[in-house]
Amino acid sequence: MKLYDYYRSSAAYRVRIALNLKGIAAERAFVHLRHGEHTQPAYAAVNPQKFVPTLEDGAHRLTQSVAILEYLEETHPAPPLLPGDAAGRARVRALAQVIACDIHPLNNLRVLRHLGTALGLDEAARNGWYRHWIAEGFAALEAMLAGHPATGHLCHGDKPTLADLCLVPQVYNAERFACDLSPYPTIRRIAEAARRIPAFADAAPEKQPDAE
Amino acid sequence: MKLYDYYRSSAAYRVRIALNLKGIAAERAFVHLRHGEHTQPAYAAVNPQKFVPTLEDGAHRLTQSVAILEYLEETHPAPPLLPGDAAGRARVRALAQVIACDIHPLNNLRVLRHLGTALGLDEAARNGWYRHWIAEGFAALEAMLAGHPATGHLCHGDKPTLADLCLVPQVYNAERFACDLSPYPTIRRIAEAARRIPAFADAAPEKQPDAE
Repeated sequence: MKLYDYYRSSAAYRVRIALNLKGIAAERAFVHLRHGEHTQPAYAAVNPQKFVPTLEDGAHRLTQSVAILEYLEETHPAPPLLPGDAAGRARVRALAQVIACDIHPLNNLRVLRHLGTALGLDEAARNGWYRHWIAEGFAALEAMLAGHPATGHLCHGDKPTLADLCLVPQVYNAERFACDLSPYPTIRRIAEAARRIPAFADAAPEKQPDAE
Repeated sequence: MKLYDYYRSSAAYRVRIALNLKGIAAERAFVHLRHGEHTQPAYAAVNPQKFVPTLEDGAHRLTQSVAILEYLEETHPAPPLLPGDAAGRARVRALAQVIACDIHPLNNLRVLRHLGTALGLDEAARNGWYRHWIAEGFAALEAMLAGHPATGHLCHGDKPTLADLCLVPQVYNAERFACDLSPYPTIRRIAEAARRIPAFADAAPEKQPDAE
């Protein structure tokens, strides 16, 4: 397999954790988002959205991080990253999608740039935007996690699931933008526990070969 | 089952199509988003994100539309809404997530309201925002669909998949906001074909009991 990656991409970070947990060695190709390498024709031919990650597996070229996680789960089922029951899987996918659909896409680099270039927002206003959607999303996540009997050391029981793979990169980003995480003790507790797992620790942005 | 629904919610629209295709009769509870019913404590207790849809199945309360679609696929496998091969499933999920992650969350009601109240954007500027993210997302989708051998009458072959369930509501919204869809002939062709299927037609916003 070959992963098109960028150390600070939180969507790529999710896939790095999955590859580590499942013991899959993947070749890496680094696409420098801040230098705009993703917008060049060579990468647009790989991924029409011009996003990272892209995962190549033989002749298959896979895009969208959550679709990639589901593909890895199906093709490399051990260790499982989804629970054994349909309702549990639905809960884990919902937790993952609160992040993957309703937090991260509002706050990624292309949106922050658009707020600056098209709407003329300065850095303080862009940071306010960022923190607003973190607060909205994390308040919902905290409510979904704190009161639920299936929540364990991690988001769903004590073993990593897709929910944790999405949570840890999002918490990393929130800390980078100096968001106040004190209202979310369950999120903080789970992120701390997950980060101690080597597969998560080794996937962290600062550990990647392209980190600056 | 019981679906918490709102006729104009495109995430709920996806689930309505799935229920129709799979022949599942669900009780309906209507949550009026424009009247703010979703922000009331009664509904926040049902869904901590205060979004529609929510699907109740016995003791299970399911949120996030794509997680709900996957749950329905697992618990009611006929007719299948995902292909039989892992790479095909990954493609369908990626197409669905281009919409569910990278178009719809940027353009939903809470974001448009925030642009108005927090950033002071007038209606013309909000519509510009809307159309910008439709154009970004549909350009990528068109490239993913037009050139791919697996694209058929619908997004993946000739039978409905999760990708079509996400595409039709997004095209409906784009038309409502008067987006120019002429650059996306494959998207328009597929949406037209899917809309002729009764399960899709019956799920359309204007056909719902709470339509205004």
